[in-house]
Amino acid sequence: MIDHTTTGAPLAFLIANEDARPQDYEHLSELYRPSHADFAYHKKYGINDHRLVHRASARETASRVVAGSIARQYLERAGIKIAGITSAIGPYSIDRDYSFEEMQQASGTSLECPDKLLSRKMRSFLTRIRKEGDSIGCEIQGLISGVPPGIGDPVFNKLQANLASAMLSINAAAAFDIGSGRHAAGMKGSEYNDLFSIHNGHIRTATNNSGGIQGGISNGEDIRFRVIFKPIPSISKEQQTVNRDGKPAVIQGKGRHDVCVAPRAVPVVEAMAALVMADQLMISGNAKISVEI
Amino acid sequence: MIDHTTTGAPLAFLIANEDARPQDYEHLSELYRPSHADFAYHKKYGINDHRLVHRASARETASRVVAGSIARQYLERAGIKIAGITSAIGPYSIDRDYSFEEMQQASGTSLECPDKLLSRKMRSFLTRIRKEGDSIGCEIQGLISGVPPGIGDPVFNKLQANLASAMLSINAAAAFDIGSGRHAAGMKGSEYNDLFSIHNGHIRTATNNSGGIQGGISNGEDIRFRVIFKPIPSISKEQQTVNRDGKPAVIQGKGRHDVCVAPRAVPVVEAMAALVMADQLMISGNAKISVEI
Amino acid sequence: MIDHTTTGAPLAFLIANEDARPQDYEHLSELYRPSHADFAYHKKYGINDHRLVHRASARETASRVVAGSIARQYLERAGIKIAGITSAIGPYSIDRDYSFEEMQQASGTSLECPDKLLSRKMRSFLTRIRKEGDSIGCEIQGLISGVPPGIGDPVFNKLQANLASAMLSINAAAAFDIGSGRHAAGMKGSEYNDLFSIHNGHIRTATNNSGGIQGGISNGEDIRFRVIFKPIPSISKEQQTVNRDGKPAVIQGKGRHDVCVAPRAVPVVEAMAALVMADQLMISGNAKISVEI
Amino acid sequence: MIDHTTTGAPLAFLIANEDARPQDYEHLSELYRPSHADFAYHKKYGINDHRLVHRASARETASRVVAGSIARQYLERAGIKIAGITSAIGPYSIDRDYSFEEMQQASGTSLECPDKLLSRKMRSFLTRIRKEGDSIGCEIQGLISGVPPGIGDPVFNKLQANLASAMLSINAAAAFDIGSGRHAAGMKGSEYNDLFSIHNGHIRTATNNSGGIQGGISNGEDIRFRVIFKPIPSISKEQQTVNRDGKPAVIQGKGRHDVCVAPRAVPVVEAMAALVMADQLMISGNAKISVEI
Repeated sequence: MIDHTTTGAPLAFLIANEDARPQDYEHLSELYRPSHADFAYHKKYGINDHRLVHRASARETASRVVAGSIARQYLERAGIKIAGITSAIGPYSIDRDYSFEEMQQASGTSLECPDKLLSRKMRSFLTRIRKEGDSIGCEIQGLISGVPPGIGDPVFNKLQANLASAMLSINAAAAFDIGSGRHAAGMKGSEYNDLFSIHNGHIRTATNNSGGIQGGISNGEDIRFRVIFKPIPSISKEQQTVNRDGKPAVIQGKGRHDVCVAPRAVPVVEAMAALVMADQLMISGNAKISVEI
Repeated sequence: MIDHTTTGAPLAFLIANEDARPQDYEHLSELYRPSHADFAYHKKYGINDHRLVHRASARETASRVVAGSIARQYLERAGIKIAGITSAIGPYSIDRDYSFEEMQQASGTSLECPDKLLSRKMRSFLTRIRKEGDSIGCEIQGLISGVPPGIGDPVFNKLQANLASAMLSINAAAAFDIGSGRHAAGMKGSEYNDLFSIHNGHIRTATNNSGGIQGGISNGEDIRFRVIFKPIPSISKEQQTVNRDGKPAVIQGKGRHDVCVAPRAVPVVEAMAALVMADQLMISGNAKISVEI
Repeated sequence: MIDHTTTGAPLAFLIANEDARPQDYEHLSELYRPSHADFAYHKKYGINDHRLVHRASARETASRVVAGSIARQYLERAGIKIAGITSAIGPYSIDRDYSFEEMQQASGTSLECPDKLLSRKMRSFLTRIRKEGDSIGCEIQGLISGVPPGIGDPVFNKLQANLASAMLSINAAAAFDIGSGRHAAGMKGSEYNDLFSIHNGHIRTATNNSGGIQGGISNGEDIRFRVIFKPIPSISKEQQTVNRDGKPAVIQGKGRHDVCVAPRAVPVVEAMAALVMADQLMISGNAKISVEI
Repeated sequence: MIDHTTTGAPLAFLIANEDARPQDYEHLSELYRPSHADFAYHKKYGINDHRLVHRASARETASRVVAGSIARQYLERAGIKIAGITSAIGPYSIDRDYSFEEMQQASGTSLECPDKLLSRKMRSFLTRIRKEGDSIGCEIQGLISGVPPGIGDPVFNKLQANLASAMLSINAAAAFDIGSGRHAAGMKGSEYNDLFSIHNGHIRTATNNSGGIQGGISNGEDIRFRVIFKPIPSISKEQQTVNRDGKPAVIQGKGRHDVCVAPRAVPVVEAMAALVMADQLMISGNAKISVEI
């Protein structure tokens, strides 16, 4: 960096973990933790050492957030902004789409959920789950605003395909929806189709079931998507498993585990969206925007 | 090809469209069809010509099916098989997971759905939708059997990320689930976790909510996923839209349009799964399997 | 194509070989031809069939020339032009650098060499080599004019590295020089360094030993390079070799073989240069130039 | 690392520069140094700061040597070894090909040149050049032994194209030769062709003008190549140049500059060769060799 300006060189950073407690995981070293990556890593890398799998920890996503924050500065110069919210935790789910401004206002609140009443219920629910020694799944919604029409590719690298890949690369992600997503399975064309009309001289769509992308290419509407996360696999409850010698065993978590990836996954989802969009903008020939950091 | 053996050279093929009827689309040439790619293509390529968007037609997926059929032969030598079914059309949905054999038996039936009673209801429903001049969304399930543990990558190219990208690259795909997918948002860790146990000397999981992938890497269980497709945007009903000159207009479809991408999307989903798995197998250092075609 | 304008879709073409004479190669089918790819292909692909190696024929370069001609139209809109000449055949070699205009004027002459007297000597020499039943090596020079400063990458994808890769991918290429190239080994810094000075208000270099690239990035001077080609391996003279059963054998060429890759390699060198520069221009964020064909 | 074994995670390292003397370069901060990357970097990145170009320093190649040393361990398990020598400095050049063992024995000698008498002349010559305040070009030869036949690709990623790209990506590299390289331009096919014959039951070539690669694919012979390097652009002699304000200026180097990239470039050439070969081996489906470090 020279006076807050990137130089064209790769940006490097180092995050020191000043609160590592490896002893908390020591009692798990002989076990394959259920729904963790221990077993799959052992099979892939052929090395029977529990420390290998530390790379599968969500600590890895800190790097994505750093990279995403640079990408967001680049995108903002092109008028592109990104917001994410916690849209569901267990049975509690928002009941309407929120605008970009509403989503932004939820940023920094305890659960990053724009519905305050719902947020309170979610908090109580999380407390209960924690007491049970259990964990719970959730859903994060993301919105990318200000994308000009014409960004994306028409066949294999469709814009939604790149977003799907980015989101499913986040630890514990289990599903991805673009626009109305899963609800589209039950919709008729006459309900789903986003009709074009003229607003203030611009061609816009009356609805946005397509989530801002048609034929793999942005149409100028908000890009709206959801990512579903599974419950964190580490729980305090006893579970049956198998140890690294292939013998049955019982496991019980002790380390510092969250109960739900929300709200911590919100900035990760935002970061991955920013990285995808920055790549797309550069591929589209708009790379000449410089960034101050 | 030399005696049904690939030679190492790229495989090329040409599919002649012997039943093209361009006149069926001529009346649409001045209109942006709702939820079609017309508008986005125009903005991306800067060319105001309706023929450009023919590349967004599902005819393009024929090439994927050809490529996938070669990949499947390669995979079968490694013991990897792929099956797909229609799992939902509009409000009609299968009510349990089907085994690989059951899924295979549905292949070639009229809707590629393994539940015969449900299949009959779906057919009546599709007839009604067609009479209404409308279209309907659906869900396709895919299953990849025989994948050895240890295939996939731990960070950005997680196996589920590559599958998600491949599936969202299919025309009209709107959502992707790996394993329990969207249902994971409402599940507790104690419900979701796939407990390890010993079966016939092999380490297996009692359930398969993870869909055969943990930490981005296969764990040896069936890889199970779902793809949700939106309703086909071309319908016979009248719809409001805008023409290429930016004036309001009314559109009414006439060409030969399907009412639902199922069951035709089933082989496309299978083909994309095959291409992803063949790439993964080669990246994993198992490329030496030769293929006869 | 729509009215001579590309549509954004991949461009496809098919060249029918209307004068194939496979019988001319039949007598070689059991032999590994010296310095041909027969043996290496057999080892790589594991298939003992002489037809595999037809892909190693220079016929393949016709596709490169087609692609390059599209790239050249794109480049010309950005003011970038490419010329190539035959600079040496056997012992006959040009004795100075030629300007872009001089190089262009050689285009279409019998050997594509700008020195007419030398060209005549080369022709006699080639006639003699042909009579001997032999073949001969050569050198092609390329020049890319009009490249703005700032194109290229600073580390692994240095502009000269991409050019080197492109040129060494041409059949029979044996060496690549950027700027003064091989002569640099014997030069002092005080001789080689390209001193900056001001010409008509622009910063230019007095010499161009760097060949228009410094630190992997264009400096606005002509990009000048050489490609050395080995003699065509197919000759009419008898040669010792080994057959596909591993037994000693004698080989004698009969097919229609050129005596030297010059001048036919000139357009191939130009095409590869065009493809590299078009990629670089797009990566540099100047992709918005549309092309009419 | 776990007990000297890689874990599958990316390998990271940090080299602290404990002898940086930025003040040595301060007097150059306003000047475009001749044949340096200053001007091209300024044009590419649009930032008028002399520190940007530090990335163009050969210090960057230290990382390549580290990566290459890991790759070499991997290659050695597959029986592949790499050696490099200084083959020419200014007018002093070796007069024959050296065997792998001879080249290895030169490793660690003052100039890494296997001809001791020549080496002494080169040392005197370098002393003289240094006294003149000048620098000099050179040539490095590389040899890769033990490559099985069948490694490489037949068209754009020919093995020689990948090597050429790797070598031209090294700072100050100006030319690349595979096998007889530049000498091929003057050779007849009957001289150049590498005749096949049987040695101890193996098919080998009598000569190795092709440098171990035919049709882009290894043929089992030693892979032999040369890289020509230009003289180091920083010299103590006064040179004319232009400053960052576009005014004529005079430059005189002061920092710690080598006089010739040899012998320091030898391990860099070896490292790049190792990285290319390790990639090729993995692409060829031989990735399962594990490495202890």
